Amino acid sequence: MGLDMRLLFIGDVCGRAGRQVVVNRLPDLRARWDLDCVVVNGENSAGGFGITEDICDALLNAGADAVTLGNHAFDNRDALVFADRQPRLVRPANYPSGTPGRGATVVETQKGARVLVVNLMGRVFMEALDDPFAAAERELAAAPLGHACDAILVDFHAEATSEKQAFGYFVDGRVSLVVGTHTHVPTGDHRILAGGTGYISDAGMSGDYDSVIGMHKEEPVRRFLQKTPGGRLEPAGGEATLCGVAVETDDATGLAIRIAPVRLGPHLGEARPDFWEP
Amino acid sequence: MGLDMRLLFIGDVCGRAGRQVVVNRLPDLRARWDLDCVVVNGENSAGGFGITEDICDALLNAGADAVTLGNHAFDNRDALVFADRQPRLVRPANYPSGTPGRGATVVETQKGARVLVVNLMGRVFMEALDDPFAAAERELAAAPLGHACDAILVDFHAEATSEKQAFGYFVDGRVSLVVGTHTHVPTGDHRILAGGTGYISDAGMSGDYDSVIGMHKEEPVRRFLQKTPGGRLEPAGGEATLCGVAVETDDATGLAIRIAPVRLGPHLGEARPDFWEP
Amino acid sequence: MGLDMRLLFIGDVCGRAGRQVVVNRLPDLRARWDLDCVVVNGENSAGGFGITEDICDALLNAGADAVTLGNHAFDNRDALVFADRQPRLVRPANYPSGTPGRGATVVETQKGARVLVVNLMGRVFMEALDDPFAAAERELAAAPLGHACDAILVDFHAEATSEKQAFGYFVDGRVSLVVGTHTHVPTGDHRILAGGTGYISDAGMSGDYDSVIGMHKEEPVRRFLQKTPGGRLEPAGGEATLCGVAVETDDATGLAIRIAPVRLGPHLGEARPDFWEP
Amino acid sequence: MGLDMRLLFIGDVCGRAGRQVVVNRLPDLRARWDLDCVVVNGENSAGGFGITEDICDALLNAGADAVTLGNHAFDNRDALVFADRQPRLVRPANYPSGTPGRGATVVETQKGARVLVVNLMGRVFMEALDDPFAAAERELAAAPLGHACDAILVDFHAEATSEKQAFGYFVDGRVSLVVGTHTHVPTGDHRILAGGTGYISDAGMSGDYDSVIGMHKEEPVRRFLQKTPGGRLEPAGGEATLCGVAVETDDATGLAIRIAPVRLGPHLGEARPDFWEP
Ligand SMILES: [Fe+2]
Ligand SMILES: [Fe+2]
Ligand SMILES: [Fe+2]
Ligand SMILES: [Fe+2]
Ligand SMILES: [Fe+2]
Ligand SMILES: [Fe+2]
Ligand SMILES: [Fe+2]
Ligand SMILES: [Fe+2]
Repeated sequence: MGLDMRLLFIGDVCGRAGRQVVVNRLPDLRARWDLDCVVVNGENSAGGFGITEDICDALLNAGADAVTLGNHAFDNRDALVFADRQPRLVRPANYPSGTPGRGATVVETQKGARVLVVNLMGRVFMEALDDPFAAAERELAAAPLGHACDAILVDFHAEATSEKQAFGYFVDGRVSLVVGTHTHVPTGDHRILAGGTGYISDAGMSGDYDSVIGMHKEEPVRRFLQKTPGGRLEPAGGEATLCGVAVETDDATGLAIRIAPVRLGPHLGEARPDFWEP
Repeated sequence: MGLDMRLLFIGDVCGRAGRQVVVNRLPDLRARWDLDCVVVNGENSAGGFGITEDICDALLNAGADAVTLGNHAFDNRDALVFADRQPRLVRPANYPSGTPGRGATVVETQKGARVLVVNLMGRVFMEALDDPFAAAERELAAAPLGHACDAILVDFHAEATSEKQAFGYFVDGRVSLVVGTHTHVPTGDHRILAGGTGYISDAGMSGDYDSVIGMHKEEPVRRFLQKTPGGRLEPAGGEATLCGVAVETDDATGLAIRIAPVRLGPHLGEARPDFWEP
Repeated sequence: MGLDMRLLFIGDVCGRAGRQVVVNRLPDLRARWDLDCVVVNGENSAGGFGITEDICDALLNAGADAVTLGNHAFDNRDALVFADRQPRLVRPANYPSGTPGRGATVVETQKGARVLVVNLMGRVFMEALDDPFAAAERELAAAPLGHACDAILVDFHAEATSEKQAFGYFVDGRVSLVVGTHTHVPTGDHRILAGGTGYISDAGMSGDYDSVIGMHKEEPVRRFLQKTPGGRLEPAGGEATLCGVAVETDDATGLAIRIAPVRLGPHLGEARPDFWEP
Repeated sequence: MGLDMRLLFIGDVCGRAGRQVVVNRLPDLRARWDLDCVVVNGENSAGGFGITEDICDALLNAGADAVTLGNHAFDNRDALVFADRQPRLVRPANYPSGTPGRGATVVETQKGARVLVVNLMGRVFMEALDDPFAAAERELAAAPLGHACDAILVDFHAEATSEKQAFGYFVDGRVSLVVGTHTHVPTGDHRILAGGTGYISDAGMSGDYDSVIGMHKEEPVRRFLQKTPGGRLEPAGGEATLCGVAVETDDATGLAIRIAPVRLGPHLGEARPDFWEP
């Protein structure tokens, strides 16, 4: 066919500011870059903690094909209910069995391609969950690239760079893109691994960067100085930056042939996929 | 005087590959960019774990003005001895009192400017040490910017992005540059904070990026799959990438006026301070 | 004088059930065992999380000479205020400077003896605080046993047995009693160390043991099975057990000459200091 | 038949001192108390770290029917090999699949009863392993009490008292004894839960208690004071205390009807199962 696929992943949408930048800009980006598939991490989209059905719908309506989550998946209990009826919402696959929702979903693009979207959580410095490497093995066995689907995107939600990199090598050649999330800071290590998997340690958050990982900075800073209880953590409300990663896959293999960071907004240096700019 | 200062920080030098890229390229960079002061994190320079006196000397001879450390500071016990006699080696200032070496040092540049170099370790997901925020307060009180020194560089060696960002705001306006280290992955969030402090969450390591945070990848990947003992961790030996951050300070204030990432070598996208390129 | 001192320490009072058993039984115990000094850990006395001024007063009125705390010290924000005006309330001494309240207090017994009560928090598997060993050194230097006071009781609030035991040896011979708290389970390792310091790794909680560390067991058990949010943690309300440790000190040295566990109530095997039983 | 079963569990055997007390005393205890089944935790039996085949044999020859392990299971790599050929050695069942050895074994007593011995590791403050609650569910489904076996002993190797207690309630009525290990300190909370399961949060270690959790105390204490590398950890070599728990099960149900701590040796108060003493 000769039709490569263009994927955009957008990192942890943080609060109202983060939602606004995604809702405002994604429709244009989708058209401008002729995107086939967009995946957005929404674990912080509802006031910084979790996601509601309305917000999930808003992200999907803005042009996301699927929404992934992380350790904050169920902070807003709405998600305990609507996760089961929203097939395009994906929570970490290595949650215990019985957890509402699903750990992977297949999105069909307008051109008819199938994209497997998997969400996993790391375990280093994180909650005790089941083995994400074993969970990935199961998901990939169930829907191998080139057979059950035309592209595979894994949102690996984790703290430690060692675990993220190890995971990247573990699935290299079997997945189109491994994108790390959770630290809320974009990394500068986007690349295509030897086996053809696109990789970046962290996509960064989409939110106001005049903040501590998306939150009004006064209270987080105070918590490092004092060990007494204080105010609540609230998402910072200034102008947000959209952060993510753009990947183009080879139609023949489903593997990555181009990768570039995306950073649009104040505070951080702008980054765009030059190879898609008209 | 109208003479701004040009600082280069180079992130965690990892093993022989990391040393080679620094020793080979730093002399040229120093000349090409007309650098006033270079600081190198050397906590992984000896086989990935710690530093020896010979290696420290090699880094200094290659053009470093000071060498900082981190949680691996004393992995090689050489450092327990020579840390006391090498005034240009700086270990985290929030180690317990009685720890060999010093937590801060003042470097004099060729043009006669004084640069205070401070090393601190974060505590989130790290060893229990004394409060790095309180330690910073003490160091800055002892040698305030604009009085006792003309520039201040803090290597904040930490895991969590929240702690790094909070620290950046905490010293914003009082320090020329806060550069995070320890994750061995460069972040894409270099910027100048509102008060004038240059900031980047992580400089990245200087070493072979075809690795898990600088180490041959087979053993680290295995350790995520199996919980049994296996081989040793060895630094990866392929061609290394030099990672760091370039900052220019304002002569009048000692604060940052320009900041750019530096990434020179394979695997990662190249980055240079355009504003210094001849 | 020939007058030895009798000290009773009562472990983490947990919720209403815990308060009741202490308030109901302490007056009798104080008389029956002719106690000179009673110290109660109250960090869980208000609904399992923190302490209020009324509850603190109730514990003092029931016969406590001092109330110690721990990681839950300020969960109830009342304590942020009344800690400063209640000299018999002691929060961990290794909180950052500026924390309300005090880390040590001297209690005068009815016979005129002075008992230094110190509260410290361990750092292994706990929050990042300042070094408890260094803090102990400072407190002991300020009020050494046999000089500034006649007995010293340290409530070492910590998770890891290694840190508790190491602390015991560290102050052995300089303190009358090191009593561990925080795990909410009494240990069977009460003894007098070589230097004369009474030691027990954990006093156990005072509360309803038909629970998970004092809390209604359904929700904690659920949290180990599911990683989704659920109900709140509520103190178990069944009949409580009073747990603690009884120590007799030598008038000449202030060191321990007798030690015994105290466990009074259902669920656990009863334990009393036989040497004081009439 | 009217024949109840007598089980003795002995906690983490620590180094040579621990082995000696077990080898010297177990034969007599086995006869004196007419024991049906003895299980010994051997994770620290080889120099404090792991176990060798010779040591495992020595423990079995001294009267153990099975040997359990924990986080130090494979510190001595001997165990990677002989775990597969020694059916009476049990390592945590929630290690990843592919780990050498087995997570449960059935021991036949001299009177012909079958005792299922399961080893599990907790996850709070421990390594990331698979869910021990789910693993227990699988083991109990495979060999339910009263059907596939006449008694079930679970060595739950964990740090946090909350996880240990929650696990006890989780299997209450389905298991004869849940015995915690790993903290190396015996707890005083032995009891029979409402459903009939004997429970103790920790059996304590078997070793020299003039130590920090079994190790020569100088180096562990130093490590709390200094953060520099020092000497090795070596098991303390003084006279050891045998620690454990004694349980009698009801022949009709396989559940516990009596439970008592066992502490034999210096430093700690002696404890014996009075109900078995001749
Ligand atoms: Fe997030
Ligand atoms: Fe997250
Ligand atoms: Fe490093
Ligand atoms: Fe480090
Ligand atoms: Fe407590
Ligand atoms: Fe506590
Ligand atoms: Fe152990
Ligand atoms: Fe252990």
